[in-house]
Amino acid sequence: MMKVLRVTAAAGATLGLMAAPALAQDAAPGVSPEIKFVFNTMLFLVGGTLVMWMAAGFAMLEAGMVRSKNVATICAKNIGLYAIAGLMYWAVGYNLMYDGVDGGWIGSFTWFDHPAHADEDITYAAASSDWFFQMVFCATAASIVSGALAERIKLWPFLIFCTVLTGVIYPIQGAWKWGGGWLNEFGFLDFAGSTLVHSAGGWAALVGALILGARLGKYSASGRVTPIPGSSMPLATLGTFILWLGWFGFNGGSQLALGTLSDAADVSRIFANTNTAAAAGVVAAMVLTQVLYKKVDLTMALNGALAGLVSITAEPLTPSMPMAVLIGAIGGAIVVLTVPLLDRLKIDDVVGAIPVHLFCGIWGTLAVILTNPEASLVAQLAGIAAIGAFVSAASLVLWLAVKYAIGLRVSEEDELTGLDRSELGLEAYPEFGVTAPAHVS
Amino acid sequence: MMKVLRVTAAAGATLGLMAAPALAQDAAPGVSPEIKFVFNTMLFLVGGTLVMWMAAGFAMLEAGMVRSKNVATICAKNIGLYAIAGLMYWAVGYNLMYDGVDGGWIGSFTWFDHPAHADEDITYAAASSDWFFQMVFCATAASIVSGALAERIKLWPFLIFCTVLTGVIYPIQGAWKWGGGWLNEFGFLDFAGSTLVHSAGGWAALVGALILGARLGKYSASGRVTPIPGSSMPLATLGTFILWLGWFGFNGGSQLALGTLSDAADVSRIFANTNTAAAAGVVAAMVLTQVLYKKVDLTMALNGALAGLVSITAEPLTPSMPMAVLIGAIGGAIVVLTVPLLDRLKIDDVVGAIPVHLFCGIWGTLAVILTNPEASLVAQLAGIAAIGAFVSAASLVLWLAVKYAIGLRVSEEDELTGLDRSELGLEAYPEFGVTAPAHVS
Amino acid sequence: MMKVLRVTAAAGATLGLMAAPALAQDAAPGVSPEIKFVFNTMLFLVGGTLVMWMAAGFAMLEAGMVRSKNVATICAKNIGLYAIAGLMYWAVGYNLMYDGVDGGWIGSFTWFDHPAHADEDITYAAASSDWFFQMVFCATAASIVSGALAERIKLWPFLIFCTVLTGVIYPIQGAWKWGGGWLNEFGFLDFAGSTLVHSAGGWAALVGALILGARLGKYSASGRVTPIPGSSMPLATLGTFILWLGWFGFNGGSQLALGTLSDAADVSRIFANTNTAAAAGVVAAMVLTQVLYKKVDLTMALNGALAGLVSITAEPLTPSMPMAVLIGAIGGAIVVLTVPLLDRLKIDDVVGAIPVHLFCGIWGTLAVILTNPEASLVAQLAGIAAIGAFVSAASLVLWLAVKYAIGLRVSEEDELTGLDRSELGLEAYPEFGVTAPAHVS
Repeated sequence: MMKVLRVTAAAGATLGLMAAPALAQDAAPGVSPEIKFVFNTMLFLVGGTLVMWMAAGFAMLEAGMVRSKNVATICAKNIGLYAIAGLMYWAVGYNLMYDGVDGGWIGSFTWFDHPAHADEDITYAAASSDWFFQMVFCATAASIVSGALAERIKLWPFLIFCTVLTGVIYPIQGAWKWGGGWLNEFGFLDFAGSTLVHSAGGWAALVGALILGARLGKYSASGRVTPIPGSSMPLATLGTFILWLGWFGFNGGSQLALGTLSDAADVSRIFANTNTAAAAGVVAAMVLTQVLYKKVDLTMALNGALAGLVSITAEPLTPSMPMAVLIGAIGGAIVVLTVPLLDRLKIDDVVGAIPVHLFCGIWGTLAVILTNPEASLVAQLAGIAAIGAFVSAASLVLWLAVKYAIGLRVSEEDELTGLDRSELGLEAYPEFGVTAPAHVS
Repeated sequence: MMKVLRVTAAAGATLGLMAAPALAQDAAPGVSPEIKFVFNTMLFLVGGTLVMWMAAGFAMLEAGMVRSKNVATICAKNIGLYAIAGLMYWAVGYNLMYDGVDGGWIGSFTWFDHPAHADEDITYAAASSDWFFQMVFCATAASIVSGALAERIKLWPFLIFCTVLTGVIYPIQGAWKWGGGWLNEFGFLDFAGSTLVHSAGGWAALVGALILGARLGKYSASGRVTPIPGSSMPLATLGTFILWLGWFGFNGGSQLALGTLSDAADVSRIFANTNTAAAAGVVAAMVLTQVLYKKVDLTMALNGALAGLVSITAEPLTPSMPMAVLIGAIGGAIVVLTVPLLDRLKIDDVVGAIPVHLFCGIWGTLAVILTNPEASLVAQLAGIAAIGAFVSAASLVLWLAVKYAIGLRVSEEDELTGLDRSELGLEAYPEFGVTAPAHVS
Repeated sequence: MMKVLRVTAAAGATLGLMAAPALAQDAAPGVSPEIKFVFNTMLFLVGGTLVMWMAAGFAMLEAGMVRSKNVATICAKNIGLYAIAGLMYWAVGYNLMYDGVDGGWIGSFTWFDHPAHADEDITYAAASSDWFFQMVFCATAASIVSGALAERIKLWPFLIFCTVLTGVIYPIQGAWKWGGGWLNEFGFLDFAGSTLVHSAGGWAALVGALILGARLGKYSASGRVTPIPGSSMPLATLGTFILWLGWFGFNGGSQLALGTLSDAADVSRIFANTNTAAAAGVVAAMVLTQVLYKKVDLTMALNGALAGLVSITAEPLTPSMPMAVLIGAIGGAIVVLTVPLLDRLKIDDVVGAIPVHLFCGIWGTLAVILTNPEASLVAQLAGIAAIGAFVSAASLVLWLAVKYAIGLRVSEEDELTGLDRSELGLEAYPEFGVTAPAHVS
């Protein structure tokens, strides 16, 4: 059947394609449990695949934002952390987050395996699809850390941190809410992880940045800030587009069900709101940098998109479209206004991960109360504070342990030469002449 | 169940997996309205996500085809236009295109919002999924413009043009056909937008290129054409692959339904034809440039893929596979033959957007009559002419208004220095030595 | 409905979302043949789209691993081979592989076309979706060849080889197993193509590398190996992430069915095992290169991911998660240990395609016997040997025929200048200063 007309909702109703009341009544008989199972499983697999792709997005964003002498190392960190997350979330994380949490603080220390027989896949979606979907969220939290700490942290210490982050720290705080733990019972709401994924990664990054210190030459003793431009704006742009794309899986998949009219409509609202918030973040950042600095700042525009995305992540379903615009635009503004703040505090965050993921993660978590009547300010603040305190404390202990055991930071000489030579013994772009000014050489 | 055999259609029938006549009879009882709703919504969401990804494809293609001094600006334009399209198509465009057009010329000036309750999603797919799918098409039209006008148009004037293009111009002409307006009643056929998206963008680009004029140094007074090579062939190649990938969503999703055997089979034909036309476009462009110029031209091969894709877009369903080959190959040839033509007319189109999207869009729209018995040459010509006239006239007014209000083109000095410094105050590749010959310095 | 809890399998059962025994009994009535048809078709279309994207992955991986003077040519080869595969698999390959093989050696020499009417789509999925899915596998085999032979093979001879490979060689050996031919009857198992796709491409690459000889300067007469670093590590990393992403379609789609609880659960196991094997391959390669060479080798880490993916491809369904880790880790180790072996034999494989696709393809094919009780060592060895012998012999004849007819290798002068100038007459990065050391100039 060839269609010659795109039928809109209204037109569809006019054409009598489907009668609403009848459909609503028929919802239950219309979709058998097995069909729902297939739809829900597909949502996890397709959504999870999109979120997996975000690992490439972070890699490209960060590869574009660091200097060329550190590009190969950031690539190694990103593929390494994604691999480690995949193994740790199998060996420890998943069951620690989901197995028998039951209102408590922690699950079980057992590894995940596929159910032995298909009949044991006795729930609303395949167990392995759920594992896959949750695993890529865990990897995302680690990806957030790599960008903030780029250009001075050694490869293995970073990967060791990621091992514990993805195997233990992320899953424990995840258990509190998504595993059905105490925060969930307290009424804390975080639909797709503004706090559980983005702020969690942001806290780990912030503590790491404080312990590591700034890159050489970034801040002078007198307080002057030297901008250190990234090596490739198109790669940074590509990374942002990849993340934007992946976020449809991140937020849309977090509906966790697709097998009914109601769920499909909800996933659709989530897609529309997610895109709208990101768009508003971009425009807000472009306009604001134009007003403040008389020029659009491309890296702010890119971070504006991510800011909008993080901001809508705690509640992508209940906002109306104008509210999604507002939530995203405020996110974009937060990034533009807080990046200089971090610089004033001499906290060196190479890609802006802390403003984007931590600050906008907090904003997004608070913004739930604007549109979701089930949310309470107290519960939202409790969740932000509890997870912030736990991740910060655990990260602090872990960063310090790694630091005193094997060291975190490359030598000054290696930092000047670039991590690609010292950590990997190669160059990311061996044939391209480097013409960087002295201060970033 | 582990499968050890890939069963082909024929083998499947042999194995008695399904009896055809019985199935055909059971089609109606086999899929409930609610299940169809979920399938159709999924088609819009997955297809729309692929089309969203095309925004990244245009960004990479264009970033690879401009000189390094203008790369960051083209990235800013591309993420900016996608964001603006997302906001304008919410605030104005969608309802202007689809709400109450009813055989007429224009819809309503109201914004789109999600239905208040899921029960109001009373049609064959979720309203918000339809909005999302239509929005990314609108963004595509704007993406086409950015490439043609690269390397000399200022950032904000371009974005202002995109604001009106995506909010008003694109939706009005879209209403004529896909909104059920007068062109639809006249019998004009355009399955996925060879005219409504690609030619529309192409006309806006052509008028813009005429008003802007060519880049400095491109055409000498004596008529000599100086090629200006793009800065990164791998990014241009990546962009082309992204666009090819996204086109499966563009054409496949335009079936607008997936919930029956017939629709699923149609979407499959569309995928196969879409890929085949693109492949034929590549091979035609490679062979033709080899014959004409004694060397394969990579940028022509890439544009050949896009030419094949644009050409099959007006009718990706009814062609047989050999016809898809023919339609795509002619598209590839059109690009190879018309790029020099534009140069002879001193119309400077940086990425070849006008040949690819406008000329092949016209060809594809005419080619509908080759395979679709419902098409008439008169109606196809009427659609091409009406939309060409409207978009050209509206673009002309808009380009001139912006030009006289705030100016369109950067100063000669800024153009020589590069837009990245003048428009954004940064460099796309700050560390890579520039070794361009004098004429492109 | 907003969810505040991510329900795990166990929790879902507790909540009584679905009763397992009842569901198992209801499986047949729960999903009508038409709905299964739609699900299966979707699996082919979505999975095939992901595999299509792998063509871009190979392009980026190879563009990053060659020197900048050969980057545009490798891009042209990759888009060219994908286009050719699409045409040849339509014109010859598909029916040669699937039409009437019936326990034999070869199908029919007829082209594929869409069924004339939707009712003739009388099997478990749309015929055109199956064509699309199989076509992208065929293209993958050709992609494997391009990387190994980069930097010295001429463009057209390579594309001519691909024409025969994708039209005839790949389909014939594919017919033996997936077309239901003699190897299938013999009990050979290869779920998604460790042998049929990856080893097949690997054998063609190996024979080509032997005939072509090494790049100038790679091996000295005294046996010294000169590393020739790739031009862009971020592009190589991007390519690897793209391939990893695409592999979910490659392996997951090879389940060939999604319309039942059992199939959806199986596809989910495949996703989880595929990711796990890749992750294990990365970690194994990173640890092993650290131990052997005192530094992590990024290109080995990237190839480790691909090694894990190839290794799990022959049997991604039956392994438990720990077995997937083992299979992938051994794959990663194979690559690290055999890359130097090839160098000792002076076989110059630019991207490591032979270790990754051929050696790990063999390993993965043998590893089937570890987890699938239906597998036999004899049958697996027979499949490996038969396909290895056929593809090698056919490739040998074809490579030699092309060599003596029109030549395979560029002149020494052109190789030193770079293929981009000699084959295409352009440069991939015309503006970036080249600072390569003398031996790679």
